[in-house]
Amino acid sequence: MKAVVDGVRKDIRAVWFENGRTVMIDQRELPAKLVIVSFEDHRDVAEAIRNMTTRGAPSIGATAAYGMCLAALNGEDIQQAASEIKAARPTAYDLFHAVDWMVERLGTGQDPVAAADEYAQTTVDKCRLIGKYGGELIEDGMKLMTHCNAGALATVDVGTALAPMRAAHDAGKDFFVYVSETRPRLQGMQLTAWELGQEGIEHRIIPDGASAYYMSQGVDFIITGADRIAANGDFANKIGTFDKAIAAKHFGIPFYVAAPVSTFDPAMKDGKGIVIEQRSQDEVNVVAGHRIAPEGSKALNPAFDVTPAELVTGFITEKGILKPSEIGIMRD
Amino acid sequence: MKAVVDGVRKDIRAVWFENGRTVMIDQRELPAKLVIVSFEDHRDVAEAIRNMTTRGAPSIGATAAYGMCLAALNGEDIQQAASEIKAARPTAYDLFHAVDWMVERLGTGQDPVAAADEYAQTTVDKCRLIGKYGGELIEDGMKLMTHCNAGALATVDVGTALAPMRAAHDAGKDFFVYVSETRPRLQGMQLTAWELGQEGIEHRIIPDGASAYYMSQGVDFIITGADRIAANGDFANKIGTFDKAIAAKHFGIPFYVAAPVSTFDPAMKDGKGIVIEQRSQDEVNVVAGHRIAPEGSKALNPAFDVTPAELVTGFITEKGILKPSEIGIMRD
Repeated sequence: MKAVVDGVRKDIRAVWFENGRTVMIDQRELPAKLVIVSFEDHRDVAEAIRNMTTRGAPSIGATAAYGMCLAALNGEDIQQAASEIKAARPTAYDLFHAVDWMVERLGTGQDPVAAADEYAQTTVDKCRLIGKYGGELIEDGMKLMTHCNAGALATVDVGTALAPMRAAHDAGKDFFVYVSETRPRLQGMQLTAWELGQEGIEHRIIPDGASAYYMSQGVDFIITGADRIAANGDFANKIGTFDKAIAAKHFGIPFYVAAPVSTFDPAMKDGKGIVIEQRSQDEVNVVAGHRIAPEGSKALNPAFDVTPAELVTGFITEKGILKPSEIGIMRD
Repeated sequence: MKAVVDGVRKDIRAVWFENGRTVMIDQRELPAKLVIVSFEDHRDVAEAIRNMTTRGAPSIGATAAYGMCLAALNGEDIQQAASEIKAARPTAYDLFHAVDWMVERLGTGQDPVAAADEYAQTTVDKCRLIGKYGGELIEDGMKLMTHCNAGALATVDVGTALAPMRAAHDAGKDFFVYVSETRPRLQGMQLTAWELGQEGIEHRIIPDGASAYYMSQGVDFIITGADRIAANGDFANKIGTFDKAIAAKHFGIPFYVAAPVSTFDPAMKDGKGIVIEQRSQDEVNVVAGHRIAPEGSKALNPAFDVTPAELVTGFITEKGILKPSEIGIMRD
């Protein structure tokens, strides 16, 4: 991704390895400032995952791989290091997968840096293919809309929903993006708008409730990421995605979901089985350290909603753009 | 409306006249604390309208009437006072209407306090009728959803969208309300949740983007206010109303609009003619004095959207519940 580091515009990743250290963007400081931190002990990398210095499942996976890389280079006990890194976050599948993948590679004697780089590069390569296929949908003068952050910060580089935008922008296409702010945690406003700004892609932040208004004014297509896609094409994504998909259907606007094939869960028959995490009401009622709600009023804070397959125009994957009905046959 | 004043639960209005003073809730201090202020000079009342100590068109109208009442009691030049109060806000129809109404009544020698009280009472009486008709829609165990604040604070007392809830609650009915927070200015979270909390009506604040999710879990009906209703039933209301109306249609959930008949504008053929105010992007990008958006990113901040008549189940008015097609014949 493009980012201005110490006044110089560079091409960087969310996490990488350099001069014997695991280096990453401190995402807690965005969008106010771009802070880059680095660690030479795998325990500090585990802490950086725990305290959300880095976030987004694919970025967490790559960070864990680079943490294991440090453990190997430092001559630490690999099984012990694996346990320490896996304990950093309780539910991220990519975290466990990346650690196990590294343990296996280190066991075969592969170079630690080469192994971790390969893990990260595999993620980036998939995102670039999503960008290639999705970028072909974007034409000069189009207006797109996205929600939350399915960007490079979450996926080492390039992103999923933002990959087609980067590809089209790199190809010289001129288009515009409505960025839904994504209450309560504002990842649209604070991360997606930041990424698009760094790339030089024209965009405006809108309140989540302004989606139908701007769709009624003319939007060419909507594109979001997905956290989990069921076998029938129902998918879970950030709360507010469902509202946009319904409105898109109302206006006849195509609705695309960008995600690697690994996001499909063939064991999950449909969206009814997806459990929705309820997060702390303080994420709604407290902003920038200030309580903004009445003292006696409680909030509900579902992290995700489930959008039914019939509202999806297509899934943009590293294997091409798939209809909901084509998902089953494409899973690895 | 019910409110705890200095530790005592009372029945108060947004604005009233007492002991020779115009008294009002300082709405800028809500929901953190309930502050009641009072003035004995009409110029201070004009300033209270200007600085949004009081807000909501009907409440502004009543405040202006009580300001004119002070001017008359204090022996001020009535035409001069009328000009000073009208200059407080540039666009509020109720403000001009209330001042002209008072000038006319004072010209016929009517008692100033009785005239201003009559003006305020007319507003409240309409809201009570909206509550009576709308309250009949509410049954024990129902889950409702509302957006923004069409409450007592905006309408002297009772409210429009909140009137049926107050009537049903007073009748002993037990129901629940999802309160959409209403970004960017959070009138749902900060005013509606406060009013419902003071009344003892069970409610939860939700992010605007959680509307479809909770509708999919079961909502009995949606109810909002309206800022302006065209002759064909298209209506303008707070941004985010349109998204909810589309989602309600998708789920087959009734969508009601509560407003006095005076909100209908027979001269406006349909919603296409309604001009949407674009407000400052700082309302989106700055919260509680903190800039929360990236430095280079701009926001769009449309204050209203226009929902087409075909998404409206009925208009709850002081003359009963009307179909969009019945509006024309009911206007005074």
